[in-house]
Amino acid sequence: MNPLDHAEFRRQGHMVIDFLADYYQNINNYPVRSEVNPGYLVERLPDCAPLLPESIERILKDVDNDIIPGITHWQSPNFFAYFASSGSTASFLGEMLMNGFNIVGFNWLSSPAATELEMVVMNWLSKLLQLPRSFSFSNDGDGGGVLLGTTCEAIICTLLAAKEKMLDKIGRTNTEKLVVYCSDQTHVSLQKAAKIVGIKPENVRKVLTTKSTNFKLTPESLNEVIKRDVEAGLIPIYLCATVGTTSTTTVDPLAPLCELSSKYNMWVHVDAAYAGSACICPEFRHFLDGVEGASSFSFNAHKWLLTNLACCCLWVKDKSALTKPLSTNSEYLTNKATESGQVVDYKDWQIALTRRFQALKLWMVLRSYGVTGLRAFIRNHVKMAKNFEGLVTMDSRFEIVVPRYFSVVCFRVSPCSININEHHGKNYEANEFNHKLLESINATGLIYMTHSVVGGVYFIRFSVGATLTEDRHVQLAWELVQDKATSLLGTQTPKTASYSKLPEQIGSML
Amino acid sequence: MNPLDHAEFRRQGHMVIDFLADYYQNINNYPVRSEVNPGYLVERLPDCAPLLPESIERILKDVDNDIIPGITHWQSPNFFAYFASSGSTASFLGEMLMNGFNIVGFNWLSSPAATELEMVVMNWLSKLLQLPRSFSFSNDGDGGGVLLGTTCEAIICTLLAAKEKMLDKIGRTNTEKLVVYCSDQTHVSLQKAAKIVGIKPENVRKVLTTKSTNFKLTPESLNEVIKRDVEAGLIPIYLCATVGTTSTTTVDPLAPLCELSSKYNMWVHVDAAYAGSACICPEFRHFLDGVEGASSFSFNAHKWLLTNLACCCLWVKDKSALTKPLSTNSEYLTNKATESGQVVDYKDWQIALTRRFQALKLWMVLRSYGVTGLRAFIRNHVKMAKNFEGLVTMDSRFEIVVPRYFSVVCFRVSPCSININEHHGKNYEANEFNHKLLESINATGLIYMTHSVVGGVYFIRFSVGATLTEDRHVQLAWELVQDKATSLLGTQTPKTASYSKLPEQIGSML
Repeated sequence: MNPLDHAEFRRQGHMVIDFLADYYQNINNYPVRSEVNPGYLVERLPDCAPLLPESIERILKDVDNDIIPGITHWQSPNFFAYFASSGSTASFLGEMLMNGFNIVGFNWLSSPAATELEMVVMNWLSKLLQLPRSFSFSNDGDGGGVLLGTTCEAIICTLLAAKEKMLDKIGRTNTEKLVVYCSDQTHVSLQKAAKIVGIKPENVRKVLTTKSTNFKLTPESLNEVIKRDVEAGLIPIYLCATVGTTSTTTVDPLAPLCELSSKYNMWVHVDAAYAGSACICPEFRHFLDGVEGASSFSFNAHKWLLTNLACCCLWVKDKSALTKPLSTNSEYLTNKATESGQVVDYKDWQIALTRRFQALKLWMVLRSYGVTGLRAFIRNHVKMAKNFEGLVTMDSRFEIVVPRYFSVVCFRVSPCSININEHHGKNYEANEFNHKLLESINATGLIYMTHSVVGGVYFIRFSVGATLTEDRHVQLAWELVQDKATSLLGTQTPKTASYSKLPEQIGSML
Repeated sequence: MNPLDHAEFRRQGHMVIDFLADYYQNINNYPVRSEVNPGYLVERLPDCAPLLPESIERILKDVDNDIIPGITHWQSPNFFAYFASSGSTASFLGEMLMNGFNIVGFNWLSSPAATELEMVVMNWLSKLLQLPRSFSFSNDGDGGGVLLGTTCEAIICTLLAAKEKMLDKIGRTNTEKLVVYCSDQTHVSLQKAAKIVGIKPENVRKVLTTKSTNFKLTPESLNEVIKRDVEAGLIPIYLCATVGTTSTTTVDPLAPLCELSSKYNMWVHVDAAYAGSACICPEFRHFLDGVEGASSFSFNAHKWLLTNLACCCLWVKDKSALTKPLSTNSEYLTNKATESGQVVDYKDWQIALTRRFQALKLWMVLRSYGVTGLRAFIRNHVKMAKNFEGLVTMDSRFEIVVPRYFSVVCFRVSPCSININEHHGKNYEANEFNHKLLESINATGLIYMTHSVVGGVYFIRFSVGATLTEDRHVQLAWELVQDKATSLLGTQTPKTASYSKLPEQIGSML
């Protein structure tokens, strides 16, 4: 047995490429959301590992029969749930190379190309996003970027940096006084990260947002909370501002938030997990205005930049603040290159020591599609979401719950369509109705959308982001939404609100 | 542009399979350790991303010209450094499927197969390792396993569980009193994890080990340290015991360490990152004796179980202790399956929320090679290390520094061979000599080994673990070691200590 025999690798590798190409070709045949019941697979599979080797042919048959029915098809063009994971051929090939080389890139020496390609790609992306030069690797600066798995890791690393920096200054017995800020729309990663790094749970301030500002975090409300804390003898250390919140893709105003935070010497992290990708287009870049006042910035290329899971890009202005608490020294890793101070050892930029050759996939994405291709990809998704929004607006039974920023439309059947007067706090019925509507749509298996709730209002999120989605999929999705609403409401579907009837002015806005 | 066009995916996928099959076929042509200088790649590449798309043909040419020279070839049969990363075809194919489906498996609903296959595979592995049933998923127990990336994550998650469990009991103001234990041979992950979860750095006890016990952590020395802490009013919460330490692969005695720790109600984590894989062979299983007294156990399948990076397997006895501090709730993730309590949501078993379909690759490894194939793989590596050890023993210029347990041989040119009397604390010269020897060997590019230091003694680690390594590679490696030692010592290479001269009794021990 040679488990890396090149002839067998070649034979089996070609088989799996064909298997996956067929999968993409036939992806429309599957219900988007898996329809299995809890326990389906546990019941089907044997309860111990096979004693003898089995053939790849047999295993692939089992993937077809046992695994695929239990998959929710995130790569389906009809996947409009959560935020999509936009895979691509280039990224897939990058993963193949990474897994083929299978190096462990903890420091420069362990595979110099892994470290240096990551530095290069992070500088490329930083330029593409027009991040301030202070976030890039340069001969005269302290900035730099690193590839992590997820935003949660980015927050843990930067929060730890902020915490240690402050404790170094004020003394280590003050941990209990440290306070972290976000809004009620910030991703739960922040709370999880705060718990992990030992910030008191009651010192995580989720500042209230309201419909009147589209659920943005306002500097006024933040200032109020900070002032109260400072008066109580507490110490603000960290703000997580969001560009593209998870529920509604709202954008917090970075410039005034950074300005306010600087008065308190706070670390500001900008989490642009989803919407960061859009900011490679000049017309969306203004959402990052003010980022020059932040301490760190991250976005997930695996959400909307054609990069397979997992790929979180993090930049910091002060790399030594980041690496100080994360650095380790082991005798068995000492080497001349590290001692020379000429190289970056990425093990000190992240939680784990082990790391893969992550930069390959991003490098291949950037080269295979080019800046123009990536921008076209983003713009096409935004255009499709805009179309969907136009259709919702034209059907008077529906309403837009929060204005669309990027490629997510937040909508619902309006309370008056179901004869509910919401002004008397009767959200419950409207929420129940829209919940039922969403379930009836998803149960068809034709498309998959998910929901959220803001300000007590339940709504449906139509999130465009899957790589294969085209106009016709959006059109069919909308027709399905209308049909199901019609069934539930017992009314007629208005004839005006169909894709072909999109008025000129919407067409020209695209 | 359709970045997931199935025809283009097929064409380019086949190209990269061939590229990698060629790479494995020609892997002996490359120097094992990369020979580039710091900055080599940064200087070669343009300083911004290309505006227009580039072809896969051009990109692969650049991988050949620019990337491969900067790779240290961890998959080379002549890679004997660190601990190897033993990739395999089956695991590579599993990664391909995972990346092809590209699902985000934060909870059961988001892709039921991802969660359930992971549960199944973790139970399979648990049986294979003969872990106590309390570590497995079962209808009547609280145990279970999860796939993480690295040991550092496993330690963070379990240490957080131990910390929160204790603070729940004794009150949250006692964080400063919590103490964590390990030995001076424990992997630095523990210190890093402790820093991350907010254990006071001065409360991490690295208990001294000595040559007299082969650098094992003894219950006597641990007890002494704990007693002193308890008398000082501190609170012991966590012990990390190691099966197969990084420097010498020593095994801490689990049974007495667990017994001692239970007296203090401490959480014991067993880190078997490297050697855990060997314990699937009945003859090595005794190294895990006593694990039934531990609270959690982890090993890295990416080190020595034919699984590509990164794959750390973690089991816990008390899953609710683990998930309590790691759980989050978001409105947009609420779903019936979670509410029913019938499913596992793995986002609450790890640091991040995002996760991939990790179980696919382990499942494919277990099925493709079977239990017999995996055991044969491990045994073959141990046999080759045993042979190498035999050869070292037969050449009187060398000595074994710490007895071999598994597939790592710790050796050096002995001080008396270089006319140094080490008993007067003159390690320095012997260390320098062996350092020079190692460098002269690695500089040939023919093989790659690394070093460590225990008890002040610098030694060379001959670590067998690469998938492609065969007897002939070990033989050539030994001949190279002898040649270089001869050059540096100015002595003759003894004729007896060659592979073909391995005496019968060693042969029969294999």
